[in-house]
Order: sequence, then C-alpha cells, then structure tokens
Amino acid sequence: MLPVALDAMGGDRAPGEMVAGARQAVADHGVPVVLVGRPEELGDTGGVAVIPASEVIGMDDDPGQGVRTKKDSSLVRAAEAVRDGRASAMVSAGNTGAAMASALLRMGRLKGIARPAIATPIPNLGSTPTVLLDSGANAECNVTMLVQFARMGSAYASLRYGIAEPRVALLSIGEEKSKGTPLVREVHSALAGDETLNFSGNVEGRDLLHGAADVVVTDGFTGNVALKCLEGSLRFFMETLMRVLRADDEVARAGNVVLDRLAPVAAELDPEGTGGAMLLGVDGVCVISHGSSSARAIVSALRVAHDLAGAGLVARLASAVSS
Amino acid sequence: MLPVALDAMGGDRAPGEMVAGARQAVADHGVPVVLVGRPEELGDTGGVAVIPASEVIGMDDDPGQGVRTKKDSSLVRAAEAVRDGRASAMVSAGNTGAAMASALLRMGRLKGIARPAIATPIPNLGSTPTVLLDSGANAECNVTMLVQFARMGSAYASLRYGIAEPRVALLSIGEEKSKGTPLVREVHSALAGDETLNFSGNVEGRDLLHGAADVVVTDGFTGNVALKCLEGSLRFFMETLMRVLRADDEVARAGNVVLDRLAPVAAELDPEGTGGAMLLGVDGVCVISHGSSSARAIVSALRVAHDLAGAGLVARLASAVSS
Repeated sequence: MLPVALDAMGGDRAPGEMVAGARQAVADHGVPVVLVGRPEELGDTGGVAVIPASEVIGMDDDPGQGVRTKKDSSLVRAAEAVRDGRASAMVSAGNTGAAMASALLRMGRLKGIARPAIATPIPNLGSTPTVLLDSGANAECNVTMLVQFARMGSAYASLRYGIAEPRVALLSIGEEKSKGTPLVREVHSALAGDETLNFSGNVEGRDLLHGAADVVVTDGFTGNVALKCLEGSLRFFMETLMRVLRADDEVARAGNVVLDRLAPVAAELDPEGTGGAMLLGVDGVCVISHGSSSARAIVSALRVAHDLAGAGLVARLASAVSS
Repeated sequence: MLPVALDAMGGDRAPGEMVAGARQAVADHGVPVVLVGRPEELGDTGGVAVIPASEVIGMDDDPGQGVRTKKDSSLVRAAEAVRDGRASAMVSAGNTGAAMASALLRMGRLKGIARPAIATPIPNLGSTPTVLLDSGANAECNVTMLVQFARMGSAYASLRYGIAEPRVALLSIGEEKSKGTPLVREVHSALAGDETLNFSGNVEGRDLLHGAADVVVTDGFTGNVALKCLEGSLRFFMETLMRVLRADDEVARAGNVVLDRLAPVAAELDPEGTGGAMLLGVDGVCVISHGSSSARAIVSALRVAHDLAGAGLVARLASAVSS
C-alpha cells in the first residue's frame, strides 16, 4: 500500500519527534511512511524515504497566505503527494489552518460537500471516543453544512470505531428541540427527519465528557470553544492536582500511591493516544495532530491515517453525504 | 434597608434549603430577608417574614408560559416585591428562564439596555473570579448587545470585586482580531475602540479557568456551552478521582491525605461560594442561584444581592451603558 505522507516540519517538536514517530510507525507497526521536509534537517531517518520540500509554513503564519506563497512547503507537498497518488494520506502537527488550506486547495473538496469539517475525538472512559465536529474549520455554518457534518461524522465513527449506528447528537443549550439559536433549531428538525442517521437529540456542554453520544455536531466556533474549554479544564485540574501533591513530603508519599492508580485513567484520556483530528470532506485522508505532538502521538496519527485510507474512508464519506 | 426577596419554592432542594439559607443569612450575617412562597410548606421560618404566593413555576415549565399563567407564583411575586419597593433584590434557585422572564416583565429593562444578560462568576485560584456573560440569556446577539454586555460586565466586576479597571476580553477561537465569526470580529473592533473599557483582546476557551481576564464577553449560546463544558469537566474529574481513591484500602488511606490537601482548593472552586449568577440589565437586582443550591449557596446569594443592591449596582450599570 502507498505510504502516509508526514509533514516532517510541522509542530512545536518538529522535526525530531516527527522523524522518531515515522521510524517507530514503520518499525513497530509496519505502517509505510514518507517524510516531507528539508532532508538536511531531518537527521537519520532510519531508511524512511523523504519527499524534499524547502519551505516551512510556521505555526503563526497566515494559513491562506502561507499556502499561496510557499508552494514548496512541506504541508503543500504532502497534500500534493496524496493528490498525485504517491501517498495514501497526509498527517501534520503543524499550523492547523494551513493544513486545512493545503488539503482543500491541493486535494480538493469531496464531491457534493459544501465545506470540510474538523472531527476531533474526545476520549471517554471505558468506551469509544465522542467525535466532535466541526471543531474549528468553519466559524460560521448553515443548515446544509451541519447536516453534512452529521452524516460525515456518523460514517467516520462507524468506520473508525466499528459502531453500527452511531448516536448522533446536536450541541445546544438545553435538551428540548426549542432550545438554541434559530439555526440550531432548524438543524435539529433536519437531523430528526434524516433517515440515514441515528439522531438522539440535543446534548449540552456538560455531556461531552460523559459519552452521551458517539458524534456531536456543532459549528466550528462553538466546537472550538467547547474543545478548548475541555482541554483547558483538564489541564487546569491536572496541574492543580500535581501542585498539591508536591507541596511536601507527607502528601508526596500519598500522592505517589494515588498517581499510580490514576495513570491508567490518564492514559485513557490522553489526547496523544487518539490519533488526532481528521479533516473530513476533502478528497483524501488528512489527519491534523496536536501542535505539541510527541513521537507517540505521531505514531497514533500515522496508524489511524493508514488504517482509514485502507478502509476507504473517503468513499464512505462521499456515499454518506450523497445518499 | 429593605429585605432581599427569596423565592422559597425554586430549586431542586426547595423549600427546605431555601428556608435554612434565609434563616442563616439573617442570624449570622444580618442580611434582611423575606421569603416568597406557600406559607404552609415553609415550616419554621424562625421569624423570617413571608410574602405569600400560591403557585410554583416548576424547573421544567416553559418560562414564558409559566410567568404569563402563574401570576401568583413565588417567582413573579418576588419580582413584584422589588418593583414595588418592598424588597431590595430578588434571589431564586428555580427555573432560570422563568426567573429571567419574571424579572424582565415585572421590573422592566434598564433604560438604554437592549437585552439583559446572565453574568456568571467562574472561580479562579488565588484571585477574583472571571465574570462570563452572557452565559445563557440570549442565544443570539448583535454588536450593540455584546458591547453593552462588556460595559455592564466591567461595571459589575468593578463594584463586586473592587477592580479599578477590569480587564475585559472577548471569547473567540484565536487571539488574533481576525479570528471568529463576522459578528465576533465586529465586536472586537467596537470593544477596542471603546474608551470606557480596559479591553485586553480575545481569549480562548482554554483561558477561562486561568484568570486571563476579569470579564469575558460572548453570546448566550457560546457562553452557556462554555460554562457547561467547564462544569461538566470539573465534575467528571472529581468523580473520576473519587472513584479511583475508593478502589481499595491502600489507595483510600493515601487518598485521605490527598483529599485533606485538596479540600481548600476545592472550596475555592466551589460554585456554592460565589453567590450565583446575576441578571444584568433589568431594573433591579436579580441573583440566579444554581438549581441544586444548598442553604450555603443561598446564604452567599443573599449576601451578594444585599451588598450589591446597597452599593447601587443598577445605577452603576445604567451609567456604564449610557456613558
């Protein structure tokens, strides 16, 4: 099978962790990978092939401008590798907006899709993650877009997590269908009448970590705020816990016992294990990993990208939206 | 000074915890209180006066219909007591929508205010809370409303927490002024040009628990989702921690040490200590306490309502918006 193209220059810990992740994915999991970036900066790739790209779109660069002006950037070249049939999928931990723009401009939109969306898995304890989309691609959405997100999210959760009929919910500010903005109410009606979906109604922000649905649909503004609230509060809680546990020797001894027991729970919730977010609705598989991704996160992302490309994700999404 | 009117029938734990809270506020803090509700259901009020009201708007009742049809409800009578100069403020832990509707319909809007907003304090460790508004009154907002929310929020934070020039931020999906919906971008410009405000730019969802601003402005849909994400994730984390700490005797012993040390932190973050949310923009002081409020939460709410009424909150809000 074709290799997964990994943007070797993207992310806070590039290229070191990118190259390490690529080598591990090849050696430990048999995932074919091709690195995309500046060969002279990659060090020993352990035999992993490289597609040379001389430019880098920085984390703070303007996405549209970056993609337009840096035609030999690692992100643009990775997307072109997928377009040209030299890679099965692309993975980047770099500038999210630029990854989206590269994928959209080089691979193109999937036929019939109004706009692609970012689908982010929110870990649940003891069950499959909840897929939140759109988690930031489109600040403004209309009914057509949100219904397509629901269908793409459902097809994605089904393929990725093996859920026969994923429970699809709409993010709102109350369970009743009368709650929310006029747009949300209209989308509620459309989803309720969509026979291709297992629509379970509205969920609220407090339900997102409680596995209330397999797929949660929202616009990219609300989705991004919600996701960052969850990330921020979990980080806040962990930091606060660690600070308290290191206050003195007595609590540190007790803390070690507690932390040993919390470790498996923390591992289940660790975003590094989820494989990253997926850009759904472009004509190719595109995984967007967290900017702070380690080699471990990159291995997860490469495996997910490889598996979903092999399982025919793009065709499944196209079929879900057109049916 | 006039008493604070407490809706004795509102909330999951009414009337028991309401009456207990009223008695404590009077006895321990010298806050004058009048209970509003069904006298025969209140038990021993310990001498706290009662304004009789024969009806109750339930937690799940439609707010508008409840206020229209239940004219002798505790919520409507509490709002009328403020309007008629028999109470300095109202406090309710009942149906939030009905509390808003009662306050709005009986007290009226504050002159010059397009729409009232719910301002919710988000606790911060080691500093004053961040005031989030609108946290749910208006699912859809326009520029005028959001600028007024910023001004009201600033005046409120200043009066309540003694902050000379509260840092006011706008909730968006990136720090740059180009981020967000067209509405958010337009509001950013308006706030940046508002010389009455100490505007510090955009914040993201992950900043809300980190004290990045004194006031965070957003529409009531996004604000409600954000607040419930924070509440939900903190509850999730506490529940998960407690479950792990009770798994067996060894961890339980260590857990007791850890929980002792966490207790002061948990107390700082406890929403029961914040005094509840405030409906800003009606012609009177209206505190909306959490539906699950205990007597302790009600004492906080009554004290805050009493203090802010005495400090002239309503006049300050009117002045902030008209200047």
